[in-house]
Amino acid sequence: MKPSGPIPPDYQARDGQLLIGGETAEALIARAGDTPLFVYDMAVVRDRVARLRAALPDGVAVHYALKANPYPPLLAAMAGLVDGMDVASAGEMALALESGVAAGALSFAGPGKRDRELEAAIAAGVTLNLESDGEVERALAIAERIGRVPRLAVRVNPPFDLRGSGMRMGGGAKPFGVDADRAPALVKRLIGAGADWRGLHIYAGSQTLDADAIIEAQAATVALAAGIADAVGVPPPTVNLGGGFGIPYFSGDAPLDIARVGAALGDCLSRRPSALRDTGFAIELGRWLVGEAGVYLTRIVDRKTSHGETFLVVDGGLHHQLAASGNFGTVVRRNYPIALAGRFFAPADEEASVVGCLCTPLDRLGDKVALPHAEAGDVIAIFMAGAYGASASPAAFLGHPAALELLVG
Amino acid sequence: MKPSGPIPPDYQARDGQLLIGGETAEALIARAGDTPLFVYDMAVVRDRVARLRAALPDGVAVHYALKANPYPPLLAAMAGLVDGMDVASAGEMALALESGVAAGALSFAGPGKRDRELEAAIAAGVTLNLESDGEVERALAIAERIGRVPRLAVRVNPPFDLRGSGMRMGGGAKPFGVDADRAPALVKRLIGAGADWRGLHIYAGSQTLDADAIIEAQAATVALAAGIADAVGVPPPTVNLGGGFGIPYFSGDAPLDIARVGAALGDCLSRRPSALRDTGFAIELGRWLVGEAGVYLTRIVDRKTSHGETFLVVDGGLHHQLAASGNFGTVVRRNYPIALAGRFFAPADEEASVVGCLCTPLDRLGDKVALPHAEAGDVIAIFMAGAYGASASPAAFLGHPAALELLVG
Repeated sequence: MKPSGPIPPDYQARDGQLLIGGETAEALIARAGDTPLFVYDMAVVRDRVARLRAALPDGVAVHYALKANPYPPLLAAMAGLVDGMDVASAGEMALALESGVAAGALSFAGPGKRDRELEAAIAAGVTLNLESDGEVERALAIAERIGRVPRLAVRVNPPFDLRGSGMRMGGGAKPFGVDADRAPALVKRLIGAGADWRGLHIYAGSQTLDADAIIEAQAATVALAAGIADAVGVPPPTVNLGGGFGIPYFSGDAPLDIARVGAALGDCLSRRPSALRDTGFAIELGRWLVGEAGVYLTRIVDRKTSHGETFLVVDGGLHHQLAASGNFGTVVRRNYPIALAGRFFAPADEEASVVGCLCTPLDRLGDKVALPHAEAGDVIAIFMAGAYGASASPAAFLGHPAALELLVG
Repeated sequence: MKPSGPIPPDYQARDGQLLIGGETAEALIARAGDTPLFVYDMAVVRDRVARLRAALPDGVAVHYALKANPYPPLLAAMAGLVDGMDVASAGEMALALESGVAAGALSFAGPGKRDRELEAAIAAGVTLNLESDGEVERALAIAERIGRVPRLAVRVNPPFDLRGSGMRMGGGAKPFGVDADRAPALVKRLIGAGADWRGLHIYAGSQTLDADAIIEAQAATVALAAGIADAVGVPPPTVNLGGGFGIPYFSGDAPLDIARVGAALGDCLSRRPSALRDTGFAIELGRWLVGEAGVYLTRIVDRKTSHGETFLVVDGGLHHQLAASGNFGTVVRRNYPIALAGRFFAPADEEASVVGCLCTPLDRLGDKVALPHAEAGDVIAIFMAGAYGASASPAAFLGHPAALELLVG
């Protein structure tokens, strides 16, 4: 038996049935028409936004990093909840604009922006987080050619990383942003060229559950921004402090203490250097806002035994939920929270491995997990499916249909 | 500096330019219209098929495992080269039939076939490789309901695996096939129910470069099939011996000695037990046939330096070439063969990391590789891109366009 991660407390049972947004898994599947199905509960997202706003000091903006989940109905609902969105491609920018977010509330980061992407962003009035000297020159040239004053920020590669981070985005040589010592000259170049300088974007890492690590990174980020502002001699209108808030995927993980993070940020900002006195701050989160709001529902096609071990073969798999199979950015495979939707909270009475329908040994969604007895036809629920699921998986692999998606709540 | 894998000997230069199918990378990109671009050279595929047929004993059929690369023009060209194709979903089955392969030359394996998939295969006359008792009963019931005699084979989970295999498909508890000791009863059940028993499918693993390991697994597979045939009392019309032939992705890898594999198989089959006297044999290969035939071409968008390290940021990334980024089925990330298309075979004069355009540190296509000096606008070629590339990557991740694909040769 191997442990599974903790099921988010947002999910309850009625008559033993898992409820998502007040509906049973079977009712949601009937509504969507089939399995596999991702269900996203906006009530959970609203709860997260509300908790975040309660924790953060007044005036700190909440941005949604669209890469976590670009499902259009979710974006449309999100547009009314957050203060801005951060995109990483022209495709994501178009989705964000279609969702109703104002161009002025959008920023676009990414290490390899093509000329046509820079032009689309400048033409739309979206802020570009520029990542190199070369990109700055291309953006300025494009703006001049199309006769627009570009909204430009500088992404800084911080000289520190986020301790305990699943994805290190700073500290040492990195493809993201410009090294901190290059930033002041680049900002001066932007301002000198007549661009609308929007400020700084500093992202030290993602997915940590350690409040102290985030508190430390945020304090270092504020100090770094102040130093750059001093060197530039012009206060940055905004500083995007990045994100990095993790969610508890695995056994033993405890939720991040955001109240403590928010209190420390308030303390830090109240004592901030005068160079940042008039600066606005933003926190950029993807996974933390939507990850726990998603459940992947997949039906058991076959139950079989091999050499004494039980396998539940489902109609979904890593083509929809690559991260849950342990094949995306993880070194050691561990089990996401998993349950039998029709006997939710029932005591486990057997050990089974939940494998996807793909003809590859990589396609394992639950490895030797404890579950109530399940048969073909039963529905397996895999939690933590709201971020980096459908859009971050190799959907075409082996020619199965795309997963269905449904927004509730 | 970290080493890169060996560039396949099929690729030559003209005036310093990489040639694929006799054309330069820039000419191919102009023809396709943009980068990133996968180019597949059918001349390389034909060479591999010819070498395989020369190595294998007479009468052993060559099957293509479509999951390696389902690009329709490649399938259409492949249909005339191989004796059959193996598919893993109804979607792949439809592609194979559209490519011109006869239904009788197709087999369908996969641990989680849905009823509608079983029905589509039975209705089309495609052989189903059945993977469990439950699947056998479902297939028989569907055949009866639609009034067809189904073509059914049994996939056997062998009690051994392929030594040195990248993907272990046999040995111990597995979701694939039925345990060997269950196979005779299941075959008798099929025959007793009036199905057209097509034989056995035994797949012990994939991607090994060790000829001895394959020779050993093939001998064990033939012995296993003979034992099952004895127990059934009816000779299997066909035995699919699986594949497992690897290709040299990484520094230090040497090509598989297929002449030795073929000679040993000939020897093994010439001494096969009488229970298999009239059996036809097939080898099922995906990666070995097409992997080296593909090159991923991606243009440098930015050249930048961070803390003294050089980064070449390209317009492609792991959304097209997940395996090359080291994030799909590999524990330790190593560099695929990589080159500068416009200065092919030129001496390396610097160390650079080639990173994709995605805003994630996972998106690294070449880590501290040795290359001739490159600038924005130059084209990077990543080899070994013919198998498990475009179709096995998270194409929608971060909202970039899908890669283009082109068949030449």
